[in-house]
Amino acid sequence: MGAAFGTWSKLVADCKFCHIDRALAVHETAECLVFLDYRPVFPGHCLVIPKEHYETLADLPAALIPSLFTEVQLVSRAVESALGAEGSFVAINNKVSQSVPHLHVHVVPRRRKDGLKGFFWPRQSYRDETHIAEVRDLLRAALPSTMKL
Amino acid sequence: MGAAFGTWSKLVADCKFCHIDRALAVHETAECLVFLDYRPVFPGHCLVIPKEHYETLADLPAALIPSLFTEVQLVSRAVESALGAEGSFVAINNKVSQSVPHLHVHVVPRRRKDGLKGFFWPRQSYRDETHIAEVRDLLRAALPSTMKL
Repeated sequence: MGAAFGTWSKLVADCKFCHIDRALAVHETAECLVFLDYRPVFPGHCLVIPKEHYETLADLPAALIPSLFTEVQLVSRAVESALGAEGSFVAINNKVSQSVPHLHVHVVPRRRKDGLKGFFWPRQSYRDETHIAEVRDLLRAALPSTMKL
Repeated sequence: MGAAFGTWSKLVADCKFCHIDRALAVHETAECLVFLDYRPVFPGHCLVIPKEHYETLADLPAALIPSLFTEVQLVSRAVESALGAEGSFVAINNKVSQSVPHLHVHVVPRRRKDGLKGFFWPRQSYRDETHIAEVRDLLRAALPSTMKL
């Protein structure tokens, strides 16, 4: 039971995505699962998750990035081809606005004038060039340490 | 000039992300570039792009998925560590709501009660179990063909 336990031990007992109803499943690979969000923004709204429990994108092992985002790419194509969408919206909430603390990538079919006003407004302006340079330099300085996880 | 032309030929003359001002750049790898959105949702809002011109996630060659999303992961960590954010929002608009037709992944620093109401409301309900199964089965049937690109 070693291997089975090894897999099982990365599921979390009270995490609803670790134990999602397979009746909602759209696609499954060795490492990932795609299923319908049961309260969709629009019908066909999918969630793509790693089967193992990782809370946020920052926590995902590098080895799982290709399989997870390949799956996201396929689903972004599928919502167009299967549902006649004109585009898609792909999104991850990490910690803030994250309803279930198991990394999940939303893939939402979009149509022009579908009423979705978008997350991305209002926009701000940086105060001036100095403000831009300050924020840029903070991020530049932080990037090397983010590679050490 | 063969190799140089090979690279250059994947830039698009009138695409503003193919020719972004490097003063906004936060990080650069052989294949990807991270830069500040100059009209951010919040200061530190980054865009992560493949340097080569691909319009949407669906168009991205599979070989570039690991490098692009590894970079997204690093930036999602950096906005927290560099800017004291409590979380992050990662998003891609494919075609609909996509302002620049060069694939770009938004990474936005988030804080609780930051006023961002979220893209994800209102939610809908499926009419019934049959409606769920119909949509699920359309997607299940479409997935295999999405792998052939």
